[in-house]
Amino acid sequence: MAKKDIAKAALALHKKLGGKIRIEPAIKIKDRAGLSLVYTPGVAAVSSLIAKHKKFARTHTIKGKMVAVISDGSAVLGLGNIGALGALPVMEGKCALFKTFAGVDAFPLVLDTQDPREIIETIVRVAPVFGGINLEDIAAPKCFHIEEELKRRLDIPVMHDDQHGTAIVVLAALINAAKVVKKDLKKLKVVISGAGAAGTAIANLLLRAGIRDVVVLDSKGVLDAKRREPHKKNLARRTNPRRVRGGLAEALMGADALVGVSGPGLASAADIRLMAKCAIVFAMANPTPEILPEEALRGGAAVVGTGRSDYPNQINNSLAFPGIFAGALEHGVTNITDTMKIAAAKNLAALVAHPTAKKIVPGPFERGVAVAVARAIR
Amino acid sequence: MAKKDIAKAALALHKKLGGKIRIEPAIKIKDRAGLSLVYTPGVAAVSSLIAKHKKFARTHTIKGKMVAVISDGSAVLGLGNIGALGALPVMEGKCALFKTFAGVDAFPLVLDTQDPREIIETIVRVAPVFGGINLEDIAAPKCFHIEEELKRRLDIPVMHDDQHGTAIVVLAALINAAKVVKKDLKKLKVVISGAGAAGTAIANLLLRAGIRDVVVLDSKGVLDAKRREPHKKNLARRTNPRRVRGGLAEALMGADALVGVSGPGLASAADIRLMAKCAIVFAMANPTPEILPEEALRGGAAVVGTGRSDYPNQINNSLAFPGIFAGALEHGVTNITDTMKIAAAKNLAALVAHPTAKKIVPGPFERGVAVAVARAIR
Repeated sequence: MAKKDIAKAALALHKKLGGKIRIEPAIKIKDRAGLSLVYTPGVAAVSSLIAKHKKFARTHTIKGKMVAVISDGSAVLGLGNIGALGALPVMEGKCALFKTFAGVDAFPLVLDTQDPREIIETIVRVAPVFGGINLEDIAAPKCFHIEEELKRRLDIPVMHDDQHGTAIVVLAALINAAKVVKKDLKKLKVVISGAGAAGTAIANLLLRAGIRDVVVLDSKGVLDAKRREPHKKNLARRTNPRRVRGGLAEALMGADALVGVSGPGLASAADIRLMAKCAIVFAMANPTPEILPEEALRGGAAVVGTGRSDYPNQINNSLAFPGIFAGALEHGVTNITDTMKIAAAKNLAALVAHPTAKKIVPGPFERGVAVAVARAIR
Repeated sequence: MAKKDIAKAALALHKKLGGKIRIEPAIKIKDRAGLSLVYTPGVAAVSSLIAKHKKFARTHTIKGKMVAVISDGSAVLGLGNIGALGALPVMEGKCALFKTFAGVDAFPLVLDTQDPREIIETIVRVAPVFGGINLEDIAAPKCFHIEEELKRRLDIPVMHDDQHGTAIVVLAALINAAKVVKKDLKKLKVVISGAGAAGTAIANLLLRAGIRDVVVLDSKGVLDAKRREPHKKNLARRTNPRRVRGGLAEALMGADALVGVSGPGLASAADIRLMAKCAIVFAMANPTPEILPEEALRGGAAVVGTGRSDYPNQINNSLAFPGIFAGALEHGVTNITDTMKIAAAKNLAALVAHPTAKKIVPGPFERGVAVAVARAIR
């Protein structure tokens, strides 16, 4: 379908559905006997038990299986800061995917505040209902502090998916792309365009996975220690071992991989020609990538991935987040560590038995994706 | 089933279910084409539309049909202040009833705060997702202020069910009980034991329905203008036209109806004998009523109701709340007025074509209950 037709069809579908998720009782309540077990007076025994021993909330209520998908609408898709209500369709969609891909119950919350302190407070106060918190589409740099603080204050897993979901899938794709071009993953020279939520998390995870030569740039060029923003200053200190200076062209010189998480119109075929032979290009901006695949291939790229479903190699978070929370809930994991994320990426990559230039990641509907990821979160 | 057996069965059922509600996608997502409509890129068109024109949230997202059932766990059932997690099974049960009785989607939120200001702030911040707020099991007197403030600040219906759901069902029961004993509803002398959330709302609604002689008492006796608590002082000013002083015995002298929303062990047969002929007794404390029905009948009561399912005339909120929110959502009602509540009570009462001493209210599973109530909320 053309872009315009997809938009039209999506609007019609949303209007017809009036919301993409429904609440259903887990048991049919047919008569007074049923009522007396599910509600009063029987429920009092369950409430009393949990009031005494909180751990039973995980086994006797939805807390054991319910994830909150929470956004303040400050950085939604390619749309930017469109606020709480504008973000709701995305969060609903994500909840529908949680159930579809991993059988996980998820409920969307969009917040009528964009103040980091208020966001944190609100989430802490609603947290008793949930077994996990998936933060979504919250702008950088506040997303870093919000996630950190929530991880510190809550005893359930908290993950900002724009950061870590993306990073896991990029690492998985890179593992297989390296195989395709027959290069050593850890020796790749990787350029990341974008130092927001995704770029920062990707850089961090690639470093943790043992890739040493990572260069991060934003619209002002390669990050250096003179940057004001703490997360950029910090990134600059831990990346760019060859002390590259300048912009995209300087960074791409001899690089093995370009990961674009910045926006359309970043690079041309000429830029890709600056890279090493058999270059890997992930252009993940949605819906318009940093460079169109045909253009990247013309520039000599050997493996190209995007965030789109109409090109090969769709590098999309939906490969990761359902399984991550499924695993965390199943195994009682309260902190999703880098080790788990790397294991998840490896499991995802391993689902493609024979990676090729056109197939470095599984499709979201392939069997076993969520299970493979969930197995890593323990 | 005996009380102990119900508790045991309820615990086993809750453990087996692990939560009484589930989230289900409203549409099956089967392939990439489906994904592109429900999620990216198609969803961007819906988000953009809503960001520009907020009204479309009601037609294109769950906001048009989703109710929040929210508690701070400060006054749960007969259990008291058991906190957020302890309250969760009750709120889940209520959500299951919303769907079962009225097809309304409802999600439970229990809050990790009992501070009124924080409760209000939190609810305001999560409100964008919801089409209505059902407050539940929040202690008096803070429940009054919380409800008022939320009604003022939000553009969706807000109702504290312990107050208004209860009041509607009591009024419905009283309408039919008056018919059974052949007394004029408006001329009934009504004594209300309990000046908390339920007692206060019942008194207010009975007054609004035209019943002039209402006497309210709490554990310290009949309310008078010297009470410190603002809501009790206020109630005292508007009730008790005969200036009754003293305790239960003084209040019951010649009264036509006793409504108990206080707790077990309030009254004996001897107390009931002080009342007028053909007395009406609603003893609604759960699970142990203010006076057992057999004892009330021994005291000469003509019509007896309780909150329990194992006696005739179960006067339970579940007759009201599902239909109230169904009506409010269907008709776009943002403020549930006293006029609507009285109409709802009349519609409920009218469902019993020929009221008798053993049948003054419909059962919760009778057909048409929610629809009859919903018809009044417009």
